[in-house]
Amino acid sequence: MNPTYETYKSAVDQALADIAVLLSDTDGRLTPVPVANREVPQPLRAAMAYSLRLPGKRLRPVLLLAAYHLLKDDWVSVMPYALALEMIHTYSLVHDDLPAMDNDDLRRGKPTNHQVFGENIAILAGDGLYSLAMETMLKASLMAKYPQRAIAAMEEIARRAGVSGMIAGQTLDVALEGTEPDEATVAYIPRHKTADLITAPILAGLHLAGATQAQLAAGEAYGQALGLAFQIVDDLLDIRGDAALLGKKTGKDAQMGKMTWPAVFGEEKACADAERYIDTAQQAVTAFGEKAVFLQTLARDMRNRVK
Amino acid sequence: MNPTYETYKSAVDQALADIAVLLSDTDGRLTPVPVANREVPQPLRAAMAYSLRLPGKRLRPVLLLAAYHLLKDDWVSVMPYALALEMIHTYSLVHDDLPAMDNDDLRRGKPTNHQVFGENIAILAGDGLYSLAMETMLKASLMAKYPQRAIAAMEEIARRAGVSGMIAGQTLDVALEGTEPDEATVAYIPRHKTADLITAPILAGLHLAGATQAQLAAGEAYGQALGLAFQIVDDLLDIRGDAALLGKKTGKDAQMGKMTWPAVFGEEKACADAERYIDTAQQAVTAFGEKAVFLQTLARDMRNRVK
Repeated sequence: MNPTYETYKSAVDQALADIAVLLSDTDGRLTPVPVANREVPQPLRAAMAYSLRLPGKRLRPVLLLAAYHLLKDDWVSVMPYALALEMIHTYSLVHDDLPAMDNDDLRRGKPTNHQVFGENIAILAGDGLYSLAMETMLKASLMAKYPQRAIAAMEEIARRAGVSGMIAGQTLDVALEGTEPDEATVAYIPRHKTADLITAPILAGLHLAGATQAQLAAGEAYGQALGLAFQIVDDLLDIRGDAALLGKKTGKDAQMGKMTWPAVFGEEKACADAERYIDTAQQAVTAFGEKAVFLQTLARDMRNRVK
Repeated sequence: MNPTYETYKSAVDQALADIAVLLSDTDGRLTPVPVANREVPQPLRAAMAYSLRLPGKRLRPVLLLAAYHLLKDDWVSVMPYALALEMIHTYSLVHDDLPAMDNDDLRRGKPTNHQVFGENIAILAGDGLYSLAMETMLKASLMAKYPQRAIAAMEEIARRAGVSGMIAGQTLDVALEGTEPDEATVAYIPRHKTADLITAPILAGLHLAGATQAQLAAGEAYGQALGLAFQIVDDLLDIRGDAALLGKKTGKDAQMGKMTWPAVFGEEKACADAERYIDTAQQAVTAFGEKAVFLQTLARDMRNRVK
């Protein structure tokens, strides 16, 4: 039997709560200078834990676990890599929300990191989450049975989260605010800002499981299509969604002149494109047979967010 | 014959100039949407290249090459890991200089990154340099003959640059500005903010060369002592140095109420402590024999900066 989304997600939430270096002092005291050598000092620890542990979908870590599970049963063993994806996602949100960036006050229904901890600590908390992602994966890889697979997984994640991936998309997202939209750019931004960090966990999970080139190609096609559908749906929700349900302000894209898919192609075509990408994603993984049902259902369910 | 500092440094400078993803368009045109898949978009690419290529001592990459060279001759082969250290160092400077952090206008004699590219791009350029460091090392490690050594080197770097290392030190550096100095904190800040990123390249170089535990321990003792001496000398230069020669403002620590070694212990004791750490560093590496002369000379030369 395939696990449900909830099975993976609660394992991720539990593991996030258990990250040793982020555990709070039991007495709630702020101890600026750590006693133990590897402890994380306050207020850095509190700021990192705050954003990482706000309730979220945990989509990216779930995708890594599920992709690994397509080929191997011991999916709990790759949890450190799954957590790293959530840390990278969270760091990107913390930095994106900064006053100099999107200047958001609300994220996942709560005040943004800089609202709580100040701008300087929010910058360092973002840096810290990215760093902890790499530390967590590398520490797990020290004892890897297949070190080359671990390196391939980490390289995939670092590259797609990096300067030709997620950070590239974020750059154009902020640099081109308010400029005349064009189709090349509107395709580039979500492909990198979003789809690269949806594709990374799929491919990392497959690398860790020792996938073939054909399996990796199928995973990439699935991830890219799902990622684009996800961003288009997100942009549609910014227009049509309920801020209370979403836990963040809506209508911000239009206000900031963001170059989104619906802004360029209109809502109707955006809806149709999202549907098309969802179909593409579902098709891409048919070669995995029965095992692919989880990923196909996940893609199908994304459709319901817009309706 | 041992290479000179200049031999290693010019190899590093050449490699920095050759980083493919940061090469400028020949016509100087800003092409926001990259054509090739792995290209870095503007203005991110220009912002990263700007800070990375400002003239610097290249101390951290040189230390990695020299530490590897203690045990192996083909030091050019570990250049990707050396470059990663300079990228991490540069990212930390770009973020440190931000208005919400130390709010510096001048770095290495030139306007700081956010002065040239704006605060949002400077945040992303910092993120990008950190990411490119990991991407560069992981890409090199894909083909590593000894993948476990590569993983150990990267883990050492990520941990010491991370939330119990450099970022921990930076956090207390900004969080405790203007508070009453105490000895525990004044020892913690330079040990992590500075010494960890001086120790990381030494240990990474040794890991890559397949060093023994005893050799690693000697390298750690050298790195910690050199790093502390380096930071104390830096703090003394902020009091006594020439801003024009240093390429950055002086007198800033006192003005911002930074908890520095001279601020807590006085200039005289700070000077004596720096001397003592330099001696410790020189002693630590005697077991490497003739080969250690380069690292010992480097430590000795640091003494001359204060006089």
